[in-house]
Amino acid sequence: MSISDTHRRRKGLLIVLSGPSGVGKDAVLAEFLATCPGVVRCVTATTRAPRQGEEPGRDYHFLDLDEFRRMVEAGELLEYAKVHNNYYGTPRKWVEDTLATGTDVILKIDVQGGLAVKKLMPRAIAIFLAPPSVEELERRLRSRLTDSERDIEKRLSDAKGELERIPDYDYLVENDSLQDAVDRLRCIILAERSKIER
Amino acid sequence: MSISDTHRRRKGLLIVLSGPSGVGKDAVLAEFLATCPGVVRCVTATTRAPRQGEEPGRDYHFLDLDEFRRMVEAGELLEYAKVHNNYYGTPRKWVEDTLATGTDVILKIDVQGGLAVKKLMPRAIAIFLAPPSVEELERRLRSRLTDSERDIEKRLSDAKGELERIPDYDYLVENDSLQDAVDRLRCIILAERSKIER
Repeated sequence: MSISDTHRRRKGLLIVLSGPSGVGKDAVLAEFLATCPGVVRCVTATTRAPRQGEEPGRDYHFLDLDEFRRMVEAGELLEYAKVHNNYYGTPRKWVEDTLATGTDVILKIDVQGGLAVKKLMPRAIAIFLAPPSVEELERRLRSRLTDSERDIEKRLSDAKGELERIPDYDYLVENDSLQDAVDRLRCIILAERSKIER
Repeated sequence: MSISDTHRRRKGLLIVLSGPSGVGKDAVLAEFLATCPGVVRCVTATTRAPRQGEEPGRDYHFLDLDEFRRMVEAGELLEYAKVHNNYYGTPRKWVEDTLATGTDVILKIDVQGGLAVKKLMPRAIAIFLAPPSVEELERRLRSRLTDSERDIEKRLSDAKGELERIPDYDYLVENDSLQDAVDRLRCIILAERSKIER
């Protein structure tokens, strides 16, 4: 065993990636996963309808409300939350089993859910992906063209509340350029892996 | 002011880089400084004789024993220590002034001195640069050809004691390949800069 193995933790890191709707979480996460070995994404369960191009089991586990309720009642979700009138939840057993093998797990999760996970598992690394400004966030939401004006206004109003929770997170990554944000995210994971266990 | 500026600390980071003699601290530090803007190296004061190629004021402040004693007595050193029969010390005022401007300062410092700084300034980021193994460290020390057999044996024996202090450090970076070690060091600094102030 090498000197550094002796001081390294055996379990995987649980990484929470949150940020307001429209900040670019999906693009950053996809590029990050392609460039940082040893991290897998947890596939969230949701009651919302698939968007164009989304695949069941790859992007989300798409469930109907009854199936989702059953998982909640059976304690099979690490956390769940209602966001924009849909439910989202994190399958507990899959997360725990994957961490136990030493693989890092990243959860793409709304702020409400992210903080619930952080409370339940305080060693989780909570990363907030922020836009450079609220104005830039609005521009990005409008360029997405998938949402109605009413949706956009609701998302912007939610975003302002979410930005106020930044102090409850561990790290802040600004998504100004995709490449810089991905590099910063990768650095946070490599640094966390280099931390010495006390 | 951007969203991320609001949550960013204003003062520079104090970074302590330690590791046993021969592990490659100088090579890693030189490459790191060349690739990571916003970090400056603190020039240590020492009573040891310059090695070939070392320049006063750039590599060390070379002082005689009387000058060094005067600085110790005047409280002008953040820490000082005797290593391999020579004194080394960190000029306090220069470090404090540089951190106050928001620039990060890195101290290349022996384990004894590194832990003294960490005790005095608990927010310092203490990074231990470790060889892959003790055998590899011995190989590196022998390839340096600047030390006598007796020196090499003393350094190896000191190294074993220093490796036992790894749990008192914050981060462990293995110097297996120079490029990986420099990348890891850069990641730790970028991650620390991304931490949210509570």
